[in-house]
Amino acid sequence: MKMKVRRVIDLSHTIMEGMPVYPGDPIPKIVPFSNVKEKVSSLSKITLGSHTGTHIDAPRHAIESGVSVDGVSLEKLMGEAVVLDLSHVEPGEAITFSDLQQHEVKEDDIVLLFTGMGRRWGDEKFLTNYPYLSLDATEWLVKRGTKAVGVDWTSIEKYGGKEHPAHDKLLSHNIPVIESLVNLDVVKGTRIFFICLPLKLKDTDGAPARALAIEFET
Amino acid sequence: MKMKVRRVIDLSHTIMEGMPVYPGDPIPKIVPFSNVKEKVSSLSKITLGSHTGTHIDAPRHAIESGVSVDGVSLEKLMGEAVVLDLSHVEPGEAITFSDLQQHEVKEDDIVLLFTGMGRRWGDEKFLTNYPYLSLDATEWLVKRGTKAVGVDWTSIEKYGGKEHPAHDKLLSHNIPVIESLVNLDVVKGTRIFFICLPLKLKDTDGAPARALAIEFET
Repeated sequence: MKMKVRRVIDLSHTIMEGMPVYPGDPIPKIVPFSNVKEKVSSLSKITLGSHTGTHIDAPRHAIESGVSVDGVSLEKLMGEAVVLDLSHVEPGEAITFSDLQQHEVKEDDIVLLFTGMGRRWGDEKFLTNYPYLSLDATEWLVKRGTKAVGVDWTSIEKYGGKEHPAHDKLLSHNIPVIESLVNLDVVKGTRIFFICLPLKLKDTDGAPARALAIEFET
Repeated sequence: MKMKVRRVIDLSHTIMEGMPVYPGDPIPKIVPFSNVKEKVSSLSKITLGSHTGTHIDAPRHAIESGVSVDGVSLEKLMGEAVVLDLSHVEPGEAITFSDLQQHEVKEDDIVLLFTGMGRRWGDEKFLTNYPYLSLDATEWLVKRGTKAVGVDWTSIEKYGGKEHPAHDKLLSHNIPVIESLVNLDVVKGTRIFFICLPLKLKDTDGAPARALAIEFET
């Protein structure tokens, strides 16, 4: 076992009170909690939505009988990832098949989409105004044998629709979706070792997660 | 980037309602949450203690001015780990300096202590009856230059005391403590690549985490 870590890049948003959440989602709370018996150590009580901050959508998010987050294979959430630079796509616009096919994506790649939205995280107007994945883009990702898809904004879905075709397409193929990544600008246009570990929440539709790029010593 | 993952061993307990928690800690809840506007996707609301299930104690858990979990260096939570077989230690007994010094521990190792308690997780009587780290054991770990310490039971501290010398010793040296690991029997007596990623909770004393052993292809 000679794997040595040279550098870690944290791709996760900080979870805190007052952080942006998708409209209608539970409001995050972190409250000091007293242990009456001990009073000697600090503890907190945390309330979160399953899709708060950087998080994973398990198939069950969109499909009632789909795999829950505790059943998502961890092998799908780590490994070689390619970070596509899609910074030309504006909020409200679709990322299409033709945006993606210009890039080299290999079978079993984790595909991370950088748009620059990660830096606009604190700005409320971008909670409902962000790029989205067109159906032909998701079809292309499925056909390429993509292992997982991650994005640096709130939701892969066009805001305000009553259906969720992008989620349906990916999640019905058991391709987990990672939303609200940050710091992808540091690695855009490169291949990285990526890992995203969600809380192991039983039978749940998704979970907050910690996502990283790791550079190993060669 | 040619790092290929061969095998993943999940060292984390599942988080669910009714799971064991340290006496007095917040009770975990996972509740379905309706998004009135959308109603088309499944969401949940989660309530947890900061030390629920497999979790990290940040220095702030024991030291008021200590580093909070969002400030713990991720490099301390990944890398080469040695899994010491201490299965001879019974619940209620101390793990001492002499138990540890029989093993080869190198500077910057993550030291994981296997006792077998991970398999007794569902049994309530072991929530207050478990091995603990003697002060001389923690002093030895500090002197060896240990990067982080992980255990397969509830708390490194002797149950019921009004002080927490083991936590004080490790956390005052910025050595994070990982409690309630499971499945260490699979890797006991070996060296592994270990990674433990806590939620990035702002200014918080600790956080639930996902912990793994990863085998890479060589």
